[in-house]
Amino acid sequence: MITDQKPFAVNPNILEMEYAVRGPIPQRAAELEKQGRKIIPCHIGNPQALGQVPMTYLRQVLSLVEEPSKIARERQLKALFEENPSSNLREEDFISEEILGISQDILTKSVTGMGAYTASKGHYFIREAIAEFINQRDDFDPRNGINADPEKIFLTSGASQGVKFVVDLLIAKGNDGIMIPIPQYPLYSASIKKVGGTQVNYYPDEEQGWVFNRSILEDAYTKAGKDGVNVKGIVVINPGNPTGAVLDEQSMVDLIEFAQEHQLMIIADEVYQENVYQGKFLSFAKGLGTGTVPLVSLHSISKGFLGECGHRGGYLELRNPPKIENSTMDFTDLLNKQASVSLCSSTPGQVLTYLMVKPPTENSKSYQRYLEEKQKVLNDLHEKAVMIREAFSEMDGVECFGETGALYLFPRLNVLPEGTTDFDYCMALLEKTGLCTVNGSGFGQKEGTHHLRIAFLPPKELLKQVLPEWIKFHNQYVSK
Amino acid sequence: MITDQKPFAVNPNILEMEYAVRGPIPQRAAELEKQGRKIIPCHIGNPQALGQVPMTYLRQVLSLVEEPSKIARERQLKALFEENPSSNLREEDFISEEILGISQDILTKSVTGMGAYTASKGHYFIREAIAEFINQRDDFDPRNGINADPEKIFLTSGASQGVKFVVDLLIAKGNDGIMIPIPQYPLYSASIKKVGGTQVNYYPDEEQGWVFNRSILEDAYTKAGKDGVNVKGIVVINPGNPTGAVLDEQSMVDLIEFAQEHQLMIIADEVYQENVYQGKFLSFAKGLGTGTVPLVSLHSISKGFLGECGHRGGYLELRNPPKIENSTMDFTDLLNKQASVSLCSSTPGQVLTYLMVKPPTENSKSYQRYLEEKQKVLNDLHEKAVMIREAFSEMDGVECFGETGALYLFPRLNVLPEGTTDFDYCMALLEKTGLCTVNGSGFGQKEGTHHLRIAFLPPKELLKQVLPEWIKFHNQYVSK
Repeated sequence: MITDQKPFAVNPNILEMEYAVRGPIPQRAAELEKQGRKIIPCHIGNPQALGQVPMTYLRQVLSLVEEPSKIARERQLKALFEENPSSNLREEDFISEEILGISQDILTKSVTGMGAYTASKGHYFIREAIAEFINQRDDFDPRNGINADPEKIFLTSGASQGVKFVVDLLIAKGNDGIMIPIPQYPLYSASIKKVGGTQVNYYPDEEQGWVFNRSILEDAYTKAGKDGVNVKGIVVINPGNPTGAVLDEQSMVDLIEFAQEHQLMIIADEVYQENVYQGKFLSFAKGLGTGTVPLVSLHSISKGFLGECGHRGGYLELRNPPKIENSTMDFTDLLNKQASVSLCSSTPGQVLTYLMVKPPTENSKSYQRYLEEKQKVLNDLHEKAVMIREAFSEMDGVECFGETGALYLFPRLNVLPEGTTDFDYCMALLEKTGLCTVNGSGFGQKEGTHHLRIAFLPPKELLKQVLPEWIKFHNQYVSK
Repeated sequence: MITDQKPFAVNPNILEMEYAVRGPIPQRAAELEKQGRKIIPCHIGNPQALGQVPMTYLRQVLSLVEEPSKIARERQLKALFEENPSSNLREEDFISEEILGISQDILTKSVTGMGAYTASKGHYFIREAIAEFINQRDDFDPRNGINADPEKIFLTSGASQGVKFVVDLLIAKGNDGIMIPIPQYPLYSASIKKVGGTQVNYYPDEEQGWVFNRSILEDAYTKAGKDGVNVKGIVVINPGNPTGAVLDEQSMVDLIEFAQEHQLMIIADEVYQENVYQGKFLSFAKGLGTGTVPLVSLHSISKGFLGECGHRGGYLELRNPPKIENSTMDFTDLLNKQASVSLCSSTPGQVLTYLMVKPPTENSKSYQRYLEEKQKVLNDLHEKAVMIREAFSEMDGVECFGETGALYLFPRLNVLPEGTTDFDYCMALLEKTGLCTVNGSGFGQKEGTHHLRIAFLPPKELLKQVLPEWIKFHNQYVSK
């Protein structure tokens, strides 16, 4: 039917672009699943696909703002129930006045409800709430001039869209480069590749827990300069993806000084900021303080204890937007122009972002339930990470570095049969046990090393079942 | 604070990119609104911002799938009500078994609920439903081999995202071009500009109702060829944006033959397919039939009688995906790769798209209400278009061509004071009356002509108030 067509020449950057998280191993897993095999999908940080329960607070509100007539009806139903207490319903089955009030308040503030386009940057009241959240998280005080500004906050469709806006802007020509840590989340390599820019690798020190220092950064920068690359920005992912490692404060200080000296924009991927299981998250905004380095920080509703990936919500916060060569506009204006072409991010994503930054207050009725649900998810994740790390200790030549954060472990496979790669390993692991991971080479890794990334999301019972199988598989595979 | 920063050199394509629909006039309107002025926002097709009521069917289901525990609870509440009929609630205040069943069915088919990433292309069951919708709309029969294929359907974040995927792929180098009608929706010019491609204009015949023919298309193609442009695709918007005109069948036939001869991909923007007020919509898929031209068709939940802009849902259907030079992949695979990098479109957008293509069946309980709501919106829109066209007849030198479709009228302003443009006119109209429209030059227009685009969305009462003011303003303005 299409035989008389000539082949199309298409954008070579898209042809070459790679995205391992949805690459050959997950594709093979999907095939096996169609054939009836039980697959344990640990290739992607998709918590609710593995049974993580949505936060009641978020979904109650979202459900009501999507159908506002239910707010008044809920009160009538509650009255009916109170007059007729014999029923098998309980008081907890009714939505609290607090939740009804929050829902009504969102509808009032949005003015146009859920079905209308919002401003390109997203609803102003939501951007205000995000600014307050940042100020509170980082102990910023408006009086010292480093508070967050709602006009420099953009609501985005997940964090991915924000990254693409920034990369698309920064890359003006082919030798413009952006530094990214190796290993990295393939969104960065793919976005840079897509617009024809140059990826400049820097190599955090795995054995020290994926930390880095000035000399690691300068080495990468100098090498790029010799290759004719004009470095414009540097990406940092904290907690790390795929490494899962929480960044130490000294690495942050070094990176900020480095960016300052070379006039680079920092792109801080902080979507796992709630996934810090020991200690406290330290943001780049806080690390920067009154510093003048341009900083983009990304956050998302997909991770943390929310795991609302499917709703595609998130935000980008910009600090110290640089002026632009040959233009009266600054970086904020140009981000806004890009956001305009997509019209706006989705209203459910925006509302969930609002609820993320405005959780129930401590003395509210929803607070206790919210806290319990939150802690259950986070404790569970931490326990699962510990279980998997313990399994590594029974696998020959497997080491895993860094303080556990995010949703991932990125163990190093020190022993592999000659001529095989971590891709072969992950494919064999999938075929043998149904466990779907992603090979380290999909994220980039120091030459000669092999890794895999596993998202520690499956239910504990499932892990208890599959980990012994994995240990057995591993020790057989590497002894070949 | 940022004085020691050097200005950044950024992507010049984004610097130059323009997007009038969110340009200076709407920006001025926003300023005026902040100052307390009443603004009538007719610059954008954003129905629910102007009071269009969401379809009950869609929102009932969406509200339930966002909080699944409400499905069982609804049945308990209904029982409570039936046992205690004295209350001031009525039976209609309860969600019907039909809606509860549809909601449960969506949750079951989605497997992972609303909070998980879906496949990059979107949920398979939704793509299947879209394929059925297309087959039914266009009387396709699987037996003749031109039925829609769920694997060639992509759920997107509005239609805009689909357009960007295709444009990003088609443009391989700067002299690669895409033909677009003038006037056009600025998403097309902006997307082509952003990736550094060449926009090739073709000029539908305004006075014949914005139709075109082979010679109009060939002229544009030949001129582009002389300028060294390698044309890869052609955009057609039906019903038109900004013209609002419904395309005639002969123009469609001519365009398909033209694309066939020159091996171009057709990009058919059909997001207004439900906004045909007289006669029946004819899709390009139907026009193409068993033809072998590569065709992309776009649809959306933002327009029609749904107007769910804020939920950012839509789909892209691909027919005859071309093979790709130097690759074993075809066009579908490469679209999929791009979709992967954004992970997936939002689940609420996907569910509303599903409900758009699967309305209540004729003998169902929800059908009557659905039909009434639908017809009310569409009749209202048509009446408002007629009202505004009538107002034009009282304005000196204003003419409006084409059969009314979509949500827009695009009148030609034949008389303007010397030295003024349609931009000046629209700005003055805004300042004087609060009516926010977009100047024709924001969409492109034949040199020497002036137009504006008005979205016919405000409530009738508001139009009755503002139209006489506009007529007065106009006749004074042009007599200067």
